[in-house]
Amino acid sequence: MSSETVLDVNAAFYRAIRRADMHAMDALWASGRAVSCTHPSGPGIRGRAAVMESWRLILEDGVALPIVPAEAQAIVTGTTAMVLCHEIIGDMVLMASNAFVLEDGRWRLINHQSAPIPGTVR
Amino acid sequence: MSSETVLDVNAAFYRAIRRADMHAMDALWASGRAVSCTHPSGPGIRGRAAVMESWRLILEDGVALPIVPAEAQAIVTGTTAMVLCHEIIGDMVLMASNAFVLEDGRWRLINHQSAPIPGTVR
Repeated sequence: MSSETVLDVNAAFYRAIRRADMHAMDALWASGRAVSCTHPSGPGIRGRAAVMESWRLILEDGVALPIVPAEAQAIVTGTTAMVLCHEIIGDMVLMASNAFVLEDGRWRLINHQSAPIPGTVR
Repeated sequence: MSSETVLDVNAAFYRAIRRADMHAMDALWASGRAVSCTHPSGPGIRGRAAVMESWRLILEDGVALPIVPAEAQAIVTGTTAMVLCHEIIGDMVLMASNAFVLEDGRWRLINHQSAPIPGTVR
């Protein structure tokens, strides 16, 4: 069992985006079950291959995304966890729900949705 | 064990909104664990009391919300499920992620986030 908490893994998720590290991103998502993802203002993406392709497009466009999580709170019950957090990108604030499951002793993402919170420009 | 599927419960969630049925809404959320909810363009709401208060404000403003789920797909693994679906409200389309757990044999919500999909006016 890893000593990583789900908040550590949530932080690693945003680090993978900041570093445009597709290898790390891939490893952060559950592999033994279906996953889903809704990027800001986008449709829902279902299935691991499609979700990974969406991240590849985001991370490989060559523009570093200075995204930082804030006020992250975890709700953990057994092998399932939700993390709610803000995502700070420059002067924009988004709200994210990230769902995790424990897979081989490590927290792995099964769903991510984030969307801008209007009127919260910093 | 109820024979309700998680898609049945997802449909019941939107029916509770359409009918402004706060009693049904309350019963649809898990009671044995923390829950969270992010309404469109809102901050993340954490904790059962705060989530229920947010629904009370939405359902008790006297305006019926003609919200209909569409293209709902469930990802079920053991006692956890995600439902992704569109939410059709008039000519607006939103994308929702709804997370459920099996509680006393019934699927109950632990997280809801929805946000508009721009450019998808019907």
